[in-house]
Amino acid sequence: MAGPVASQSLERLPIVDQAIGAWFFPSRSDAMAEAERVVSATPAPAKARKWLAQLTEEPHVAGTPQEKVVAEYVHERLEEFGLEAEIVRYEVFLNHPKHVALRLTEPEQTELSLREDFLSVDKDSAARDVFPAFHGYGASGTAEGQVVYANYGTPDDFKKLDDLGISPTGRIVLVRYGEVFRGLKVREAEQRGAVGVLIYSDPADDGYMKGDVYPDGPMRPPSAIQRGSVQFLSLQPGDPSTPGWPSTDGARRLAREEMTSVPSIPSLPLSYGEAEKILRHLGGPRVPDDWQGGLPFAYHAGPGGASVAMEVEMDEGLKPIYNVFGRISGTDEPERLVILGNHRDAWTHGAADPNSGTAALLETARALGAAVAAGWRPRRTIVLASWDAEEYGLVGSTEWGEDRAATLQANAVAYVNLDSAVTGPRLGAGGTPSLRDLVRSVAADVPEPLQGGSIGDAWQKHLRSEWADKAPVELDRTDRPFELHLGTLGSGSDYTVFVDHLGIPAATFGFRGSYGVYHSVYDNFRWMEKFGDPQFVYHAVAARFFGLTAMRLASAEVVPLRFGSYARALRAELDKHRRKTVRLARKGETEDGWDPGSLDFGPVLGALDTLESAGEALDQTLAELIEREDADAARRVNDRLITLEQTFLSDDGLPGRPWFRHLLYAPGTTTGYAAWPFPELAEAIENKDAELFRHGTVRVVAALNRATRRLRETASAAR
Amino acid sequence: MAGPVASQSLERLPIVDQAIGAWFFPSRSDAMAEAERVVSATPAPAKARKWLAQLTEEPHVAGTPQEKVVAEYVHERLEEFGLEAEIVRYEVFLNHPKHVALRLTEPEQTELSLREDFLSVDKDSAARDVFPAFHGYGASGTAEGQVVYANYGTPDDFKKLDDLGISPTGRIVLVRYGEVFRGLKVREAEQRGAVGVLIYSDPADDGYMKGDVYPDGPMRPPSAIQRGSVQFLSLQPGDPSTPGWPSTDGARRLAREEMTSVPSIPSLPLSYGEAEKILRHLGGPRVPDDWQGGLPFAYHAGPGGASVAMEVEMDEGLKPIYNVFGRISGTDEPERLVILGNHRDAWTHGAADPNSGTAALLETARALGAAVAAGWRPRRTIVLASWDAEEYGLVGSTEWGEDRAATLQANAVAYVNLDSAVTGPRLGAGGTPSLRDLVRSVAADVPEPLQGGSIGDAWQKHLRSEWADKAPVELDRTDRPFELHLGTLGSGSDYTVFVDHLGIPAATFGFRGSYGVYHSVYDNFRWMEKFGDPQFVYHAVAARFFGLTAMRLASAEVVPLRFGSYARALRAELDKHRRKTVRLARKGETEDGWDPGSLDFGPVLGALDTLESAGEALDQTLAELIEREDADAARRVNDRLITLEQTFLSDDGLPGRPWFRHLLYAPGTTTGYAAWPFPELAEAIENKDAELFRHGTVRVVAALNRATRRLRETASAAR
Repeated sequence: MAGPVASQSLERLPIVDQAIGAWFFPSRSDAMAEAERVVSATPAPAKARKWLAQLTEEPHVAGTPQEKVVAEYVHERLEEFGLEAEIVRYEVFLNHPKHVALRLTEPEQTELSLREDFLSVDKDSAARDVFPAFHGYGASGTAEGQVVYANYGTPDDFKKLDDLGISPTGRIVLVRYGEVFRGLKVREAEQRGAVGVLIYSDPADDGYMKGDVYPDGPMRPPSAIQRGSVQFLSLQPGDPSTPGWPSTDGARRLAREEMTSVPSIPSLPLSYGEAEKILRHLGGPRVPDDWQGGLPFAYHAGPGGASVAMEVEMDEGLKPIYNVFGRISGTDEPERLVILGNHRDAWTHGAADPNSGTAALLETARALGAAVAAGWRPRRTIVLASWDAEEYGLVGSTEWGEDRAATLQANAVAYVNLDSAVTGPRLGAGGTPSLRDLVRSVAADVPEPLQGGSIGDAWQKHLRSEWADKAPVELDRTDRPFELHLGTLGSGSDYTVFVDHLGIPAATFGFRGSYGVYHSVYDNFRWMEKFGDPQFVYHAVAARFFGLTAMRLASAEVVPLRFGSYARALRAELDKHRRKTVRLARKGETEDGWDPGSLDFGPVLGALDTLESAGEALDQTLAELIEREDADAARRVNDRLITLEQTFLSDDGLPGRPWFRHLLYAPGTTTGYAAWPFPELAEAIENKDAELFRHGTVRVVAALNRATRRLRETASAAR
Repeated sequence: MAGPVASQSLERLPIVDQAIGAWFFPSRSDAMAEAERVVSATPAPAKARKWLAQLTEEPHVAGTPQEKVVAEYVHERLEEFGLEAEIVRYEVFLNHPKHVALRLTEPEQTELSLREDFLSVDKDSAARDVFPAFHGYGASGTAEGQVVYANYGTPDDFKKLDDLGISPTGRIVLVRYGEVFRGLKVREAEQRGAVGVLIYSDPADDGYMKGDVYPDGPMRPPSAIQRGSVQFLSLQPGDPSTPGWPSTDGARRLAREEMTSVPSIPSLPLSYGEAEKILRHLGGPRVPDDWQGGLPFAYHAGPGGASVAMEVEMDEGLKPIYNVFGRISGTDEPERLVILGNHRDAWTHGAADPNSGTAALLETARALGAAVAAGWRPRRTIVLASWDAEEYGLVGSTEWGEDRAATLQANAVAYVNLDSAVTGPRLGAGGTPSLRDLVRSVAADVPEPLQGGSIGDAWQKHLRSEWADKAPVELDRTDRPFELHLGTLGSGSDYTVFVDHLGIPAATFGFRGSYGVYHSVYDNFRWMEKFGDPQFVYHAVAARFFGLTAMRLASAEVVPLRFGSYARALRAELDKHRRKTVRLARKGETEDGWDPGSLDFGPVLGALDTLESAGEALDQTLAELIEREDADAARRVNDRLITLEQTFLSDDGLPGRPWFRHLLYAPGTTTGYAAWPFPELAEAIENKDAELFRHGTVRVVAALNRATRRLRETASAAR
């Protein structure tokens, strides 16, 4: 490996453009490479540092005046960089805490703290205007009772609690953060009769068991609280008062009690310093082995030993949010949109989540602006979006996506997302498989600033090592070679409306490291400067990555969506379902009409085979088209490529959650963040529903076959 | 499942003998079943409780007067039960601590405790004559220096330490117990230049993270110390002054400094209460994720922050040990031996380890004595052995095995081992595959005392569930059905000399539960009464299990060794090596002359296939022989069956450890406890040695083919 490169000289890093040739007509490659060099050279660590410092001066929760100030700051910067800037305002249902309190009532009366400790080395930890512990979309109410501990609060955890003979009914459920989206923990508890929920951060998950804690290290200290939304994210994101339709002026609105995607029992987040005061006293049986966390005693499930009283009073109602956009209009296909986005609202100062992304987005804007100033213009229109109220449930992006659905489905080429852009040096990237080749080409052309080589090298090396250790080995066949795929999209960030509701290709990326202060008051500028990205080089790298992705999407004569690896990415996911059913069959978990060993994956496997051939053939054809610079053929294929992902949508959506219309990708009903590829098949296996499995198979096969036909038509059109 | 059965009525549990028919000539089955009923009905919880209370009155370390008292107690009981009893004495090299001290010298001077806390609820915890923290065969010496933390102290851990840029040279290495035998941790540290070793019990491994700690629960409390031997067990067990030859009077002896199987640097065991005082201060880099234990802070590897000084002075030299034997002579084949054994020496009181086994052994003796009194006699001689000095390095059994090698190889049918017979309710059983069918038949005939059904049902259910979750799934073939195999023997108990040195079939079993007080002063009668086996029913069950196994081995007209599953058990182990090499190949870990992807397992796989056919054919032939009650044929096959395991021995033993002669099973060179099946192939893969792999393959294939020929000859002789 090459030695480290001084951060100050990021601007002078080698600019590689080896992968550019695949995307542009040969005669235009040089001009494009020149424009890319401007965009590569512009992002600067010092600038990113400055933007981040200003963006994170104060906590700026969606719906607060402080967040409006930050929206205006972003708007000004976009204008300053030469983009057409615009603020789009919606009124949406939000909540802020008016009064929260938590008291231990057994074994003794003790007030538990719902605020973080002030640390003298960190001025931001003293912020007066930060909200105390509360949950976005958490319900108002009081609750009092015995505590039971239910691990991560997944359906499986509640089943084990039931096996232990312990009922959550009438009790306050204490669960730890992790594994699934927090709102689904509350949902599971609520469905089982709990009267309140406390969600704490266990030190085994992001505290001292993962590294030194803040302010000495990047991980979660004892008093840090993970705020966050408890919306039922996998059922319905966006404004819960307008489920499935946009929160435009005069829109029909549901009252709080009519909303089905938010809890009705109160919940609060809790630090492990305070949770310990409850957990240590819990009686009842010792927990199953994998429920033990990192506090220094053996965990018990309760009930008995510890009771609490909670009070939660919310200020809730319609509040304004502000999506900020910057635009560079396209030359040849101005109606076509390449959208880059990142949210801006934060639970606290939000240095990593999300403003490392906002800082990168601003540097991207500055870089693209510089290219425009140097005479470049994209073929298609580039839109940079700074979303609001993502933290509450992807509200800003969802409402806008619902608002502009028709335009987007007709014209959007792709959506590229950043969220917590930087918490460390390691690239993580997810997306629809059609963007794999593009993302890989950009990663190959962005130098790794501290280790040498490219971001793509480091990324591939890491994924390859994980594959070597973890991918199942099948002895009876030759080992399949490693293939890099983008991570599978679930939910939890703003790509959701684009992929799952509109069928628009999307990717999301970020640079990852040890990060334990998520959604706490310690996610602030000092944390980033000490631990996340002390030299701010990965902020600049993220901007470069974002910018090159946008340029290739917007300027390639043939839209850079490729389908050769799509079926193999799906096949890898299907194999996970197949393995799971083999294990279920081993356990003999058959029921009337349900035998996991007899599920027929054959039709889907067959459809994937034909999809693979069609995708590979199209990719080859497109490469030839680019080589011969056939502009007419490019126009014909672009019309088809742009809407190809929509062949995977169904009109009526997924079972119980019609807003989710993609038949191949969705967040898990019970996971929220994590994806359930082939969501109907996943749900069928989860619920032991053979009829749903057959129904889902028919729908998936039909969707795959639609895509195969479209790929073949596109290939014909390319000739 | 049937409801629980009151423990008092174990004697009245149903006596099942459904599996007996497979083993005996039909005309003798009824008489045998009657004798088995006596042995089944005799073991009593109250008696086992009484024996255990008396055996554990005082700590009785090998070589101490207290241990001689316990030997004589066992001898008296065996005589009382009507067995021919005998004490066989050896003089062997042992050590006892004269002076031990450990002092923190940085960041401040603090004496660290090498004694356990007295607990007022537990009188035994006040034992005056218990040794403080020390290691069996630990070296005398002093050491002082900076501490570095090296996780479990495996070669891989030291490699990671090296990757972190940290050298153990001249330092004191702090490692945690677990993963590998403690002596090999010291060996690895010593080889790398460490001047001393501290081995502590991390709460993540057997402390509060695994359950409530003593005296409130069965797991390890903060002051508990794991004593134990630091012999290099995988290289050479037994008396280190007579490696490979028996410690008989006048035997040639190595001096301490000539011994190669014991450490030369001092080492001490440590409680986590005291280890925390070192670990908490360690500087240096944060450890790799999987090195983090259960103490409530982020672990660092050092050096810096903490230094210690250790003083270890041993009283070492030749001391007497006492193997106690009880014998029931056989009628028809008196020279043939069926040996049951369990060690008796303990680091402290040793209620679980080993005297739950001694109590069971005494109940077995009483039960067999009762059958003899009722008129039964075995065909072959049954020997019950109570070994001494197992804790130091399997010394009593090894010296006896070396002493009687010729007789044993000619006449021993099998060795059946108990060690910590009872720490809970779950059967665990390991052994050479030829004993699988016998052990399974006994398990089927021993009722589970608290849950209903048989021990075999519970055992099979547990193993099947592990298989369902963990056995690799291969999608491209029909899932192989579950097959119960005995666990693979490594080392760490007295079966070692029989299997690995003499090629005698062996099995070992015990009833397992949560057990965190191993080798501490809290492994005493109160622990057993409160947590391990409060009703002492599993002690009685172990005695029944032991007794029936002995009876079938000793009385079946055809020796109950079966070979139909042997090749499949080996195949399962070989597949693990194959999977490992596929993963290594994925990582591209090739070197000059070494390519894990090109290792040829074909010859061994082929030899296993023919072994499987021959084994299955023989089993069928033996079943027919029994059916037609052909006594002459039985005699012919027994001569061959008894020595069949010896076809797997090599004269020159394994690389670097010639005492280990079995080519299929051995403890891992670097693991000690855990088995390395196909040890030469395992070593070749570990050391990237293609030549050893080829050499090992030739030897394994030859051994497998010898066995196949012998199986075929035996089948011919059976006709």
